[in-house]
Amino acid sequence: MSNKELIATITEAVIRQLQNSQEDRKIPVGVSNRHVHLSQEDVEKLFGAKACLTNYKDLSQPRQFVCEERVTLVGSKGVIEKVRVLGPVRKQTQVEISAGDGIKLGVQAPLRDSGNLASSASITLVGPVGSVTLGEGTIVVARHIHMNTKDAYEWGLKNKQRVSVQVMGPRGLVFNEVSVRVSNDCKLEMHIDIDEANATLLGNNSYVKIITGEK
Amino acid sequence: MSNKELIATITEAVIRQLQNSQEDRKIPVGVSNRHVHLSQEDVEKLFGAKACLTNYKDLSQPRQFVCEERVTLVGSKGVIEKVRVLGPVRKQTQVEISAGDGIKLGVQAPLRDSGNLASSASITLVGPVGSVTLGEGTIVVARHIHMNTKDAYEWGLKNKQRVSVQVMGPRGLVFNEVSVRVSNDCKLEMHIDIDEANATLLGNNSYVKIITGEK
Repeated sequence: MSNKELIATITEAVIRQLQNSQEDRKIPVGVSNRHVHLSQEDVEKLFGAKACLTNYKDLSQPRQFVCEERVTLVGSKGVIEKVRVLGPVRKQTQVEISAGDGIKLGVQAPLRDSGNLASSASITLVGPVGSVTLGEGTIVVARHIHMNTKDAYEWGLKNKQRVSVQVMGPRGLVFNEVSVRVSNDCKLEMHIDIDEANATLLGNNSYVKIITGEK
Repeated sequence: MSNKELIATITEAVIRQLQNSQEDRKIPVGVSNRHVHLSQEDVEKLFGAKACLTNYKDLSQPRQFVCEERVTLVGSKGVIEKVRVLGPVRKQTQVEISAGDGIKLGVQAPLRDSGNLASSASITLVGPVGSVTLGEGTIVVARHIHMNTKDAYEWGLKNKQRVSVQVMGPRGLVFNEVSVRVSNDCKLEMHIDIDEANATLLGNNSYVKIITGEK
């Protein structure tokens, strides 16, 4: 093999490898509409003593499901009816809304990672049996990528690392400040909310790509 | 002056120049909510024979104003009431909604530059005197920067050129595909819609920065 041929062969192999590794970084998108996670105590206040959440449909993440149960959100300026409850029950009730919902409801929900609820916004939930007024628990969830331990290791990413993500199309953009959430058995998926989906024209059949690691 | 001092002086001058030119590229943001531009013919159908638009409040762009007149938008799946009319009248009626509004109304409005209405979506407008059903004219307006001829020349940008724009903050991102619209006497302003404002947490007091010219 001549030097020229050798160089051509190596170049081709490197290009193929780069294309493959970029291809591997394609991430399916999941769009989150407003929803509520409830504690067992709040399930019973809203739906009755000893009530349990009923699985209506499995979600893509393992053990997570959409419930048949729905609630009404009430803020100082408005109401949103028929808001989905997601199961299973959690230790603390968490209400996830979009910034647009917050304006409609009159609820100033801060942008947070899921579970980070200290001093977040107050809201009232109404169910068929009773109501619950939360002192805190209402947030706009920061966009994030669920990634299992194996993918994170192979891609050289760590839990809570911030990455940038390329969105293609007529409303193409680069999301900075995307949080990577690594856990053992989750499904690879980038979660954005309705405002972000509308602003990018991304949907549940879309893909995005990580383009940088730590900024 | 020693070589070392000379290099330090030149370096400082170059850094100052770069900082200044970047500083110059700060652009105020204007958030567009859903609104309607009407032809005189449609003004009369909706508000009565010989009706004229009434200036309620000037907009930041010269000669543009919010009207006292409001209309109801009706689509196949929903209704949005009290939608602002903007003046002055135009040759052709144009309805600007967000992607989120389109879902609520059941109107599949394409992403377009203002004025590009061929084969865009149908909608019905209802006013106090009558209604108008448009065969086309409903769009989601592509984000864009209004820039006067002098600024465009100084920044080396051309009409309809696409640039990228940096948005800072907790929902920081880079908008690609931002259209520059150059005209003689407009006010420098980047226009985004409500979905884009919610997805970035930008408001009317925010600033963004052009970071690249042609992609």
